[in-house]
This record gives sequence, structure tokens and C-alpha cells, in this order.
Amino acid sequence: MTLRQQERQGPADTPPEELDRLIGAATDAARVLVGSRPSDRAGWLEHVATRLDAAAEDLVPLAAQETHLGVDRLQGELKRTTFQLRLFAKILRDGSFLQATIDHADPAWPMGPRPDLRRVLRPLGPIAVYAASNFPFAFSVAGGDTASALAAGCPMLLKANPSHPELSAATGVHVTDALAEAGAPDGIFAVVMGFDTGIALVKDARIRAASFTGSLRGGRALFDLAVSRPEPIPFYGELGSVNPAFVTPDAGAQRADDVAAGFVGSMSLGNGQFCTKPGLLFVPAGTGLEDRVAALASERPAAPMLSEHIRSGYSEALAQLAERPGARVIAGKVNPEGDPAPTVLATTASDLLADSEAMTQECFGPAALVVSYGSEDELLAAARVFEGQLTATIHSSRQEPVTSALLEVLTERVGRVVWNGWPTGVSVTYAQHHGGPYPATTSVQTTSVGTAAIDRFLRPVTYQDAPDDVLPPALQEGNPWRLPRRVDGVLQSV
Amino acid sequence: MTLRQQERQGPADTPPEELDRLIGAATDAARVLVGSRPSDRAGWLEHVATRLDAAAEDLVPLAAQETHLGVDRLQGELKRTTFQLRLFAKILRDGSFLQATIDHADPAWPMGPRPDLRRVLRPLGPIAVYAASNFPFAFSVAGGDTASALAAGCPMLLKANPSHPELSAATGVHVTDALAEAGAPDGIFAVVMGFDTGIALVKDARIRAASFTGSLRGGRALFDLAVSRPEPIPFYGELGSVNPAFVTPDAGAQRADDVAAGFVGSMSLGNGQFCTKPGLLFVPAGTGLEDRVAALASERPAAPMLSEHIRSGYSEALAQLAERPGARVIAGKVNPEGDPAPTVLATTASDLLADSEAMTQECFGPAALVVSYGSEDELLAAARVFEGQLTATIHSSRQEPVTSALLEVLTERVGRVVWNGWPTGVSVTYAQHHGGPYPATTSVQTTSVGTAAIDRFLRPVTYQDAPDDVLPPALQEGNPWRLPRRVDGVLQSV
Repeated sequence: MTLRQQERQGPADTPPEELDRLIGAATDAARVLVGSRPSDRAGWLEHVATRLDAAAEDLVPLAAQETHLGVDRLQGELKRTTFQLRLFAKILRDGSFLQATIDHADPAWPMGPRPDLRRVLRPLGPIAVYAASNFPFAFSVAGGDTASALAAGCPMLLKANPSHPELSAATGVHVTDALAEAGAPDGIFAVVMGFDTGIALVKDARIRAASFTGSLRGGRALFDLAVSRPEPIPFYGELGSVNPAFVTPDAGAQRADDVAAGFVGSMSLGNGQFCTKPGLLFVPAGTGLEDRVAALASERPAAPMLSEHIRSGYSEALAQLAERPGARVIAGKVNPEGDPAPTVLATTASDLLADSEAMTQECFGPAALVVSYGSEDELLAAARVFEGQLTATIHSSRQEPVTSALLEVLTERVGRVVWNGWPTGVSVTYAQHHGGPYPATTSVQTTSVGTAAIDRFLRPVTYQDAPDDVLPPALQEGNPWRLPRRVDGVLQSV
Repeated sequence: MTLRQQERQGPADTPPEELDRLIGAATDAARVLVGSRPSDRAGWLEHVATRLDAAAEDLVPLAAQETHLGVDRLQGELKRTTFQLRLFAKILRDGSFLQATIDHADPAWPMGPRPDLRRVLRPLGPIAVYAASNFPFAFSVAGGDTASALAAGCPMLLKANPSHPELSAATGVHVTDALAEAGAPDGIFAVVMGFDTGIALVKDARIRAASFTGSLRGGRALFDLAVSRPEPIPFYGELGSVNPAFVTPDAGAQRADDVAAGFVGSMSLGNGQFCTKPGLLFVPAGTGLEDRVAALASERPAAPMLSEHIRSGYSEALAQLAERPGARVIAGKVNPEGDPAPTVLATTASDLLADSEAMTQECFGPAALVVSYGSEDELLAAARVFEGQLTATIHSSRQEPVTSALLEVLTERVGRVVWNGWPTGVSVTYAQHHGGPYPATTSVQTTSVGTAAIDRFLRPVTYQDAPDDVLPPALQEGNPWRLPRRVDGVLQSV
């Protein structure tokens, strides 16, 4: 089933005239939002969080029904989602995100007299957000992109993911109502549906940026539309990743049980349907690590996948991987009758190096490939075959000589390096980076998780010699919002 | 003459095999640079500045000969160029640009236990920089893009502008030698030549970003190549802008002489060959402002243009503008025999509104259009016709009601708002923003002038639970580089 077919089975597409009206309302809202106070927006986000927390008993069962994810996992995800809204509220109150910068006029500035210049970030305008299938709360209607776009002061249209349409509609009602109750302007937020709606959205001249979490194929197609517009717009696509993990000889010898258990736990979490699922594990040959992984994986139960679309994509990718020369199934089945259980394949580094493109494709689901290497040179050669990744993981018991070289090779290719841990369970924090070189994302410099995600929806504007009373408050001499600012080159806290 | 033809007349193109070798050397240099200390890079930039200052007597006459710009202007521009290198050295020593962020492990983090996460910015890798014609120092071989790319720790290939090839080669020797003398790695910098070389560069998989200053057509063509690569890369194009200036009724009544003198000075500076040249001046009808502008412009001498290519583009654009219904020449000539002198056309806001696309095209050279408006509504309607601009200027003697509305309309469209001044003479400072919505640039969130320009060439990476001795110094617990860092959400100065 194609995505377009899947969309056809969900709620009706947003009619084109309704989409046009909603984008128009967002455009009007943008003019109001640009003057809104960050602390007011903080209050809106907090009210959305409160309301979603209160609606957990309605929303979680709906999510469980549509996604087949467990209630515990979904409750945890909703908690993460409302935490995220509150964390953005906190950075709105802090105000550093505005990067307010003031250079007073200086007749003695070395390159020549300097006028008074003041820069601040302002919202980009109406944003299109494409929700993901695999996090029905945290990367969906009220997810991280929504929190960061609204925090930035951008109105937004949320293109619902077809895998959980009822939950999307229900969550959308809560978000829209909560924003209205909290005093946000009309038109700030709407949920839209349908494949063609998603295409119309990214092509609309009033939309000023788009963010997306999903497949490489879908994301690249939308990226291509975004950049080929008469006026290209930023497109923040978080696409595929296989998140390789590397076990050094020492770690393999000393912590094989821990590594095997951690790996199987991480690769099978959420039935393997995470963009940070570790899809490859490189292990030293002869340590028996692959057998331990196989044994643990075989104990895991089968579970339904998010949607028929994802299931069929998974089966196809896994079947292709299993057909590669040198690949053999050591746990699970490639084409089970019912729901898939964790499935592990094994190969050697030399077979992988001979066929690296095919053997490093993402299988979005509970499958992984264990690759045994014979030497440190082979380990490093294998690390070099990867294109851009969200994460890479190193298990190393001490600073073996190969570790530095491995770290250097991997850091060139990834957005996050995980040490003696696992990449799933992306914490929402200040220092998080959830991004990476293409094809992990279409925008190597930005993150979709963590407080820095707000940067995607802001742009600078500088005022030259403007009188105090026409400046935005963030730049007024008296600092009425009590922001941290850089003044004449020096960062000043409050 | 097309650009390709012009390139054919300059020094020989860089042969493809030589280009390949240089990109290979830059790729090797990138691995060394990623570990370089920012304060060491500061020393390199300062040494380049010292050497260029010492070479002024050689370089300025060469620049004057190739560009026809005056010696005084060129001396000032070289001073700006070396100041810029030293300002980036200063921010390298400050270290805030790394945005080092540390979140300690926190078992009580509200969304669930948080691992230790540490983020820092690192260089993108080899960069292609396309030099501009109109600033043979400040936006060319040793210009702002070079300073910010090298400051970021990126090796770079500088595609020389064909309008000043000898100066480019000579400057390139100074930069390359100075970097080597200061201890920078081999392969960090090279000047390359030729139209086809420029195309090959942006398509090369080893190049990780490109920056460009030049025409809308050329910039868009390179942007299209950059984003249609198998692995798209960031493309920072600074393209065209007409930089409209708006005189409110009060300012027109009270400061007509100042406004006229300032406008003519700004539009004819550098023979009008600045991306910030104010190309349109909106004046209240009946104040005689257009006659004053015409009188002052007529006193200005003719001057040669940067190149035959630019001269022909200017003549063509000006002729097209002069043919628009309602446009009349009030100073200068549309098709003079020799060098062009400042040329002013006049029209009314109603004629402009009826034909706005054609009447707001950039004429890159000493031409401008004075537009008289009859009412504040007409003034605001005219302000709304503009697409993205680098700058807009407001002359207002006091805070008239129309001013707020005008400011709101313009701030939506531009990167810098100038108050009772003129947009030329872009100061290099912390708060400067030289950018704007498309078509002013291809990258609405970045600047090519000022210290924030370094952000274009950096990307984040996060380390999770990494031991202190494998972390980069910027993230080590003891803060050996004494950087300002955000720790557990709180900005800490040193």
C-alpha cells in the first residue's frame, strides 16, 4: 500500500478552499504573533501542556488503538510531549533564544564610524509541519516541531500523519482550544489532512518554512519541492538513519553480556520503529557476541507494527537485506505469517565492505545486522562506509588506540556520538542534537529535538539608528524584557 | 558579453585535475582543522591581515587598474578587509561562537533520567566561496566569507571573480603564504579560476557548503545545483536587492535638502555598484524632492564601471526601466556614449503600482527611481510590492502614525531597517545583519557580514556519556579553553 493509498483510507482530505482559508488565517496570525511577548507565548504552551495532560485518559487509548503501541509507552510519550512544551516555555522566559545584540554608535570603530546597530531574531512566518507516524504524541500534532514553531512565534499548519488520523484530530482540538483559551490569536494552529494537502502546503507562497519527520523518499520529495519554489524556503527534514554501533575488542571481551542485552533492548524498543534504532552492530570476531544477541532477540515477542504501510516497507527492506551474499538470519524470521518479532542477521565486515550500500540500508522495524570484524583496520574501514547518520555508538572499555580513530571517523558523519550506551530514548535538553549530515537530515545545522530546535523558525533583523520608541522591546536601551544581551561585543546577563 | 565569455579572457581556468587535487588537499586539511584550537586560528587570521596591510602598495594599484575604483575607496576597503580578519580573530578568542552546552546526567530530569549530554559546534568541512566583482577586497579573495570560513575551521576553495583576476591571484599568494607562515595546515586555502571550475566545485561531493555574492541569475543557478546534488549542501547566496527608501510627509517637508543629498551620495557611491545601493526613493508629491535629487545627481561625474559585463547588464536594465509607462529621465542619460554618470528616473506611485514587477528590478549601477506618492495609503501600498530585500530605509522626522505601519510592512521583507540614514557602508560588527528573504539571499537566516557570518560554516555535534578524555576541549569538565558555556541550562561566563 502506498502512502497515497493509505491517506485515502483516513479522514477526508482538507478541501483546497479550506486549506487556502487556513493558510490565510495563519498569515494574518503571523502579523499578530511577531509582536507577541515571549512570556505570553510561554503561557500558551503551558496551557496546551496542562490540557493535554488532563486529556491523557482520552488520548492514550485512542493512540494505542491507532498505532498498536503499548499504553505504558504512550503514557511516557505524552509526558515527554508536555514536558517539551513546558521546556520551551522556560526558554521563552529566559529570552536568550532571541540573541538580542546591541552595538552602540562608535565614531572610533576601527573600520570607520559605526552607526547604532541592533539585531534580534524574529519569527519566520507561517510554517508547515509534517507529523511522523512513529511518535503519535512527541513528533506529531503537539510534538517538538509544534512546540518550537509556536515558541518562535510562528503560526503553523500541521499535516497529520495518516497512520493515526483520529488521534491527530482529537489532539488538534485540544491544542486549538487551549491556545484560544490562553489568548493566542486566531489562525495560529490548524491540523490538515491528506497527501495532496501536504504537497499543496509546501508549494504555497505564504508558507515560509517546513519541517518533516519521516522517510528518506518522502522527505526528499518535499525538500525538492521546497527548494524549487520561485522563492525557496528552508526545509527541515529528519529522514533515515541506521545508527551503527561499534564494539571495540576490549569492550567485546569484557562486557559482552551487557552489550548484547543493551543492543537487543534498544533495537527492539518500540518494535524497532525509531529513527535512532541501532541497525548495525560491529563486534569483534570470535567473542560469541553475535550468538548472545541472537539468543536474546529470539526471546522477544512479536508485536504489531504502526501501520500496514510501514509493515510492508519493513518486510521489503528486510527481504532485500537477507538476500545479500554473506548475510544469514540468526534470530527471528524474514517473512513471518503474523506480526514480526525481532530479527537479527549476521555477516562479516569483509562481506559488508564488498556490498556496503545494500548492507547499510535502513530497515524501519525490529531488524538488525550484526557484523563481525577481524581487525581494527577492518573496523575503521567499515566505519568509513557510512553516509550521514543521526547517531553512532561506541562501546569501548578504555581508551584503546583504535577508539580515537573511530571517534574521529564517526564524528565526521553523525550528529550525536553515544558512548557505552544506546541511541534510542532521545532526551529533550539544552545540549541535545537530533540531526546530522544528509541523508539523516536535509539540514545539517539544525536539530528537531531539544531547545535549539527553536532556531529553525527564526531569522535575524537589524535596526540601524532607530529611535528607542520604534525598536522592539528586546532591543530598547532600557531592556524592558530583562533579556540577556550582547552589548558592544560583551555578553551581559541579567 | 556573457560571464562565461568574460572568464575566457582572464587567466586560464584551473584544470580539472588540478581542481581535484586542491579539493583533495582541502579534504585532508579539514581533518586537521577540526582539531585546531580557535586561538591558533585567530593567530592565522591576524597574520593574513598583517601581511595584506603590508602589501597595500602592491595590491591597491592592481585593484584600481582592474576595477576602475578609486585608490581612496580601495585603501578604505582593504582596511575594512583586514579589520574583518582581526574581528573574527577576536571572536575566536572569545569562544562564544562554539555555543558549548553541557547538560550533566540528571536522574530527576522530568521527562525521565537524562544522560550526560554535551554539544559543541564543529566545522562543516571544505567550503566553496564565490567572490564578488564589486568589492575586490572585502567580498573577494580575503573577504568576509574567507574570514568566516577559515575562522570556523573550514578549508576553502575561492572561486575568483573574473573581473579582477590579477588581483585575485596576487591576493591569493599573500593569503596562502601567510597561512603557511603562521602554521596553518597545507590545503587550507586555494584560489581557483573559471566558469566551469565554479560549476564543478559546487557539484563535488567533498564540498560541504558554498557561499556566493553576485547576481540573482548566477546565484540561483548555483543554488539549484547545490540543492539538487545527491547530498544537498547549504548554499549561502547573497543576490540582488533594490533597497527601497521611504520619506514620510514630515521628513519630506522638514529635511528635503538632507534627504536629497544623502540619497544621491548613497546611490552614486562606488558608481552605484553596491548590493545595498538605494534604488528607489519614495517621496511625498509636491515637496520638490525629486527636483533636488535630479539637480544634485546631475552634478556628479561619469565614472567607469567594474567590467564590461556589468556595464552591459546595467545598460540593459536601465533601458528597460526607462521604457516603462510613466517613467521619465530627470538626470543623466540612459544610453551615454562613454562612462555612465548618475542617472535618475521619476515616476508616480500609481504608475509603479500598475507595473510593480518591472519597476522594482535592480539596475546594478548609478541609477535610481524617484517615486512620488500622493497619500499615506499609496505609500503603504507601494511598500507592500517589494519582495525580500537586504535593506529598507525610512526617513521620518517624528513618529508619524504612518511610520509604525511602514516599519511593520518593511520589517517583514528585509534584513536591515535603516532609520534616517542610508544603507550603503555596511559596518562590520556584532549586531550587523546583511541578509534577507529571497531573492535578497537564498538563506534567510544567515548573514554574510558581521561576526554572525561564522555560523554558516559550523554544525552541532552532541556527545552522550563520553568520558572526559575523549571529549573535545570545549566540552571537558575543567573547561581548559575557558569558554563561556551553557551548563545545565544556565549561561556561564568566564
